Amino acid sequence: MIERYLDDFEIGERFVGPGITVSEAQILDFALMYDPQPFHIDREAAAKSPFGGLIASGFQTLAVGFRSFYQAGAINHASIGSPGLDELRWLKPVRPGDTLHTEVEVTSLRASKSKPDRGILRLAWEVKNQTGETVMTLSGMHLLRRRPE
Amino acid sequence: MIERYLDDFEIGERFVGPGITVSEAQILDFALMYDPQPFHIDREAAAKSPFGGLIASGFQTLAVGFRSFYQAGAINHASIGSPGLDELRWLKPVRPGDTLHTEVEVTSLRASKSKPDRGILRLAWEVKNQTGETVMTLSGMHLLRRRPE
Repeated sequence: MIERYLDDFEIGERFVGPGITVSEAQILDFALMYDPQPFHIDREAAAKSPFGGLIASGFQTLAVGFRSFYQAGAINHASIGSPGLDELRWLKPVRPGDTLHTEVEVTSLRASKSKPDRGILRLAWEVKNQTGETVMTLSGMHLLRRRPE
Repeated sequence: MIERYLDDFEIGERFVGPGITVSEAQILDFALMYDPQPFHIDREAAAKSPFGGLIASGFQTLAVGFRSFYQAGAINHASIGSPGLDELRWLKPVRPGDTLHTEVEVTSLRASKSKPDRGILRLAWEVKNQTGETVMTLSGMHLLRRRPE
C-alpha cells in the first residue's frame, strides 16, 4: 500500500477496485436486517415485482461499492472519515451472483482552512457489474490527512 | 399498516421511526465486511484516532436509519424502489450502544409524466441518537405507486 496523503492526489486521477460477487444469501441477510422490502427478502414477491426477481438493497450496493473502492488502496493511509456524499443514483438492479467493482475519479481537492493538517478529497464513483453496466453513481467526499512537513 | 399511496402524502407531513440500538458486535461485523477502516474494526487503533474510540461505518448508520424509517410504515405498501438520494451528511460519530431513530419530513411529491401509475416522493431525513443529537441528514427519494383509480 502506498502511503498517500491528500497532497498526493491529482484531479482526473482514477482508481479501480477489485470485483466482489454478491450472493443471494448475502442479499437476504443484509435486507432482513436493514431493508426488509419484499423485493429484497422474498423470492416469490420479488418475482411478481417490477424487478422480476430478488435484487440487492441499494444500501448494500453502496456498502459493497465502498469495499471495492477501499481495496483499491487510495485512501487507506490518510482517511480520517467522511463528511458525506452527494447525488447518489441507483441506475440498475443488482441481482444474486452479480460481481461489482468500483471505479473512481478525483474531481476536487481542498485543503481545510481551519485545520491545516487535513482536507477534503472529492471523488466521482461508478459502480459497475460484470457486463460493464453502471449500477450506481455518486459524488463522495473523504477527509484525508495532509503530508506532514 | 395503512395502505398509503403517493397520493396520500402531503408536503410537510412527518414520520418518526422507532429506536434501534447499535451494538459493538454489529459495528465490528458490518465494518469487517464492508468498511474495514481502523476506526471501525480495531478498538486499539480507534482509541488513538481522532474519534477516540470505535465508531460505526457511516454506511451502517445509513442502513440502520433506513430500517428505522421503514418501520415507521409510511412507504411499505407503495414502494417500488428508489432512484437515489442527495446531500448525505455524517454529522456526529455513532458509537457502540447508541440508539438511533429516523425522523423524516415530506419535501416534494411528483407524479411521473411517462408512467402515470407512479411518482417520486422526496423526504428530508434526520437520524438522531438517544440524546437528540442529529448524527446524519440526507434528502431521499422513493418511487411509489399511485392510488389505483
